[in-house]
Amino acid sequence: MKKSWDHFLTDRDRQVFGDAGYGNNAGLGSKPALLIIDVSYDFCGHKREPVEESVKTWNLSCGEEAWDAVDHTQTLLHHAREKRIPVIYTTGIDSRLDGFDRGAWTWKNPKMKEAQGVEGFRGNDIVKEIAPLETDLYIEKLKPSAFHGTNLLTHLVHLGVDSLIVTGTTTSGCVRASVVDAFSYNYRIGVVEECTFDRGQASHAMALYDMNAKYADCMSLEDTLQYIETVDEGIYDDKLDFGSFKRKVAAE
Amino acid sequence: MKKSWDHFLTDRDRQVFGDAGYGNNAGLGSKPALLIIDVSYDFCGHKREPVEESVKTWNLSCGEEAWDAVDHTQTLLHHAREKRIPVIYTTGIDSRLDGFDRGAWTWKNPKMKEAQGVEGFRGNDIVKEIAPLETDLYIEKLKPSAFHGTNLLTHLVHLGVDSLIVTGTTTSGCVRASVVDAFSYNYRIGVVEECTFDRGQASHAMALYDMNAKYADCMSLEDTLQYIETVDEGIYDDKLDFGSFKRKVAAE
Amino acid sequence: MKKSWDHFLTDRDRQVFGDAGYGNNAGLGSKPALLIIDVSYDFCGHKREPVEESVKTWNLSCGEEAWDAVDHTQTLLHHAREKRIPVIYTTGIDSRLDGFDRGAWTWKNPKMKEAQGVEGFRGNDIVKEIAPLETDLYIEKLKPSAFHGTNLLTHLVHLGVDSLIVTGTTTSGCVRASVVDAFSYNYRIGVVEECTFDRGQASHAMALYDMNAKYADCMSLEDTLQYIETVDEGIYDDKLDFGSFKRKVAAE
Amino acid sequence: MKKSWDHFLTDRDRQVFGDAGYGNNAGLGSKPALLIIDVSYDFCGHKREPVEESVKTWNLSCGEEAWDAVDHTQTLLHHAREKRIPVIYTTGIDSRLDGFDRGAWTWKNPKMKEAQGVEGFRGNDIVKEIAPLETDLYIEKLKPSAFHGTNLLTHLVHLGVDSLIVTGTTTSGCVRASVVDAFSYNYRIGVVEECTFDRGQASHAMALYDMNAKYADCMSLEDTLQYIETVDEGIYDDKLDFGSFKRKVAAE
Repeated sequence: MKKSWDHFLTDRDRQVFGDAGYGNNAGLGSKPALLIIDVSYDFCGHKREPVEESVKTWNLSCGEEAWDAVDHTQTLLHHAREKRIPVIYTTGIDSRLDGFDRGAWTWKNPKMKEAQGVEGFRGNDIVKEIAPLETDLYIEKLKPSAFHGTNLLTHLVHLGVDSLIVTGTTTSGCVRASVVDAFSYNYRIGVVEECTFDRGQASHAMALYDMNAKYADCMSLEDTLQYIETVDEGIYDDKLDFGSFKRKVAAE
Repeated sequence: MKKSWDHFLTDRDRQVFGDAGYGNNAGLGSKPALLIIDVSYDFCGHKREPVEESVKTWNLSCGEEAWDAVDHTQTLLHHAREKRIPVIYTTGIDSRLDGFDRGAWTWKNPKMKEAQGVEGFRGNDIVKEIAPLETDLYIEKLKPSAFHGTNLLTHLVHLGVDSLIVTGTTTSGCVRASVVDAFSYNYRIGVVEECTFDRGQASHAMALYDMNAKYADCMSLEDTLQYIETVDEGIYDDKLDFGSFKRKVAAE
Repeated sequence: MKKSWDHFLTDRDRQVFGDAGYGNNAGLGSKPALLIIDVSYDFCGHKREPVEESVKTWNLSCGEEAWDAVDHTQTLLHHAREKRIPVIYTTGIDSRLDGFDRGAWTWKNPKMKEAQGVEGFRGNDIVKEIAPLETDLYIEKLKPSAFHGTNLLTHLVHLGVDSLIVTGTTTSGCVRASVVDAFSYNYRIGVVEECTFDRGQASHAMALYDMNAKYADCMSLEDTLQYIETVDEGIYDDKLDFGSFKRKVAAE
Repeated sequence: MKKSWDHFLTDRDRQVFGDAGYGNNAGLGSKPALLIIDVSYDFCGHKREPVEESVKTWNLSCGEEAWDAVDHTQTLLHHAREKRIPVIYTTGIDSRLDGFDRGAWTWKNPKMKEAQGVEGFRGNDIVKEIAPLETDLYIEKLKPSAFHGTNLLTHLVHLGVDSLIVTGTTTSGCVRASVVDAFSYNYRIGVVEECTFDRGQASHAMALYDMNAKYADCMSLEDTLQYIETVDEGIYDDKLDFGSFKRKVAAE
């Protein structure tokens, strides 16, 4: 099957890659959590439009690919919630007025200091199509990795998680940084291709390629759903209260 | 000037990148350290030969580009040492016999469990052309980032470093992971293009592009040497003993 | 001078301590920040009363000693703000309804799951007598150390801080945990005795003793004020906006 | 039963402690590892003698209590090894000649810069009575906590450990710092009283008291052995090779 990154590799890359031994299928364990990284208005824009348009209003927006990924993530969420797999959202922290806490971000991108977006939409809110439930874990972060300066690792140890299903944005930025950290802590990782997105086409493809080579299994949504099917239902019920979610479902 | 990554970007990438605001020149501070990541026989092979050949003996080798970078790093080292800028090397830790401490590495690359290389060369030794001095800092690590599970950050705080000059390999792997962590701790970062290398051509170019966009200044060796020229000599003399080095120079 | 811990030491302790070599005065550097740990209603109660009383309403309260320390901290804050030394507050995070994020805390103290306090006072709010300004740094944490799962270290590197003046509560709990982490990152540390407090008398005294022996200088408020006098005014003005504070002072 | 810390508590301490709610028995999980902290010649001296004597040769020595704990740790080790529970040793790193990497340690204890001990004994070697096997995990560290700047957490996640049995020294220093970190990552912790030791009597007792109040279960060796009895044998056999150990036993 043709991979999204094939177009970007050189002939030499294809040859060396095989000999180096990378890209094996690592597989996932029996205790996963679902990690949804930064799927906020800042990175999606407030409506579906091409990235070239969207970026004029929301300078971090990834445009249409974001909204395609949101659709696929709805499907993924539905299956994960049925098994009561923990769902962990990350998003950014609203900056101080003086921008101090943005730190190094503004050194490389001075626009980070400007107001973005349109009225009625808070940039750091998760888009309403996949808005978190009260029972989900919700992690606010300042840096690319979902682990940096957060309690994510503490929560994962508490839950006894052994695998992370990773989605969100940007593939080459916060997704990749989080995957490298998760790999470094020896978690098994599946990156769901249809549920990740980036404003850069080459960056997106090469991030998937690099992650699949060394750190994570780059999986299709279909394969991910099949994997979730194999996970026992309710394995975290003694740790985490999914009750509100269950009530919510009952009420619908 | 044509950049190494231009070939890999799509037309849309070029357009969106500008509007997003990334790629500003961040600049370096006044208290740098030089970080040389994993320039060992494992990643260079024991002799200069094309990567397609070298990888047959050393499966992680990056081939000729490694040796080109070693040449440039000799120049860089010479200037850094003259100013008594701390030089920090990283390399891998020899694995347990059962491979346990390699952890997730072997899930994606089963060759990690096999013996590599040729007799007379220890894979984790820094190549002798740029071998560390006794007074350099030497950090052994198990994971991509030079910060993960090491005392690097502790040493940087002790020294009062504000900037890192980053070189070594692989650009898309350990260099990038270390840069993302350094960025997250708010260090200013210069990645020296001629002194970094990777076995993958697309991975190398896109890692430089992504880092330069968001996390670090991708600098030429020439610009780096000009920067070092501006650093005051001996600013770390009260913290770190460069004595052996000075003796060594005197003896030559 | 008689120290608060003298009463608790054994004769052998006094002898061995000297021979071991600990307890040297380390001194502080030239770039301090002030860290105020968890001085919230949860740990002070909502009014000054003996700990034996206060603990019936607020099970974590430290009673009168808390309010004595608050008085002293007002003095300390006044002098630190005059020099525009960064002030960093920490406090707890309001728990999820299911208590999941409290984690190990509830294993040792089941009362952590119960509602505490009296109406009109939010347990995690800093007491109004030393309430933070908008320009202060404000860190919410789940664990004892102010560094664990927070961006404190990132901010300290950004500021170029080399020393921490530490106050707050509990001396044997979050203060000590934060001091051990700060020590491990090679920050110079002054613990201000009059501005720290604990619900346990022996725990308080021995925490001061242990910290002073190995990790930090246990300082009187008077010595701390003298030290602050030596700090240059406005050394962080290029990093942090103290403007609102200045305006606030002007308006008063 | 009378506790080692009773002597040091004040009357008020006893009253407040109960109302605060601390000191509950947390219990251990089903997947433990055994952590043996810094039981080296530096902290034991090279022979059993009273601390007042031993400290003249080895300034960090804890004297006779160290050797009592070594005896008890032999018993503990025997039972842990029979179940093939991972055994993790920590010890210090030999310092650079210029002492740079000792960092803040030397600020509070200038003796840290001097040579210690007697010929024939390397200070950082684990005492031979409980010397590690090749198959044990062996962690070298610069700072109090076994987690700081090490791969301990990475290994624990890989193993799927949920509980730590903690022993070693000093109770108020490296043991306590490691316990606070383990608590912060939500591990269940048992501190084995007979297998911990400290050069300070008050520090030892109050560290046990504080840890038992908030972070860990302070357990007798007997209770610990009973707990180990309940652990399934060989639960880590798929992760860690205990082969050499098994061979060693067979050969004896």
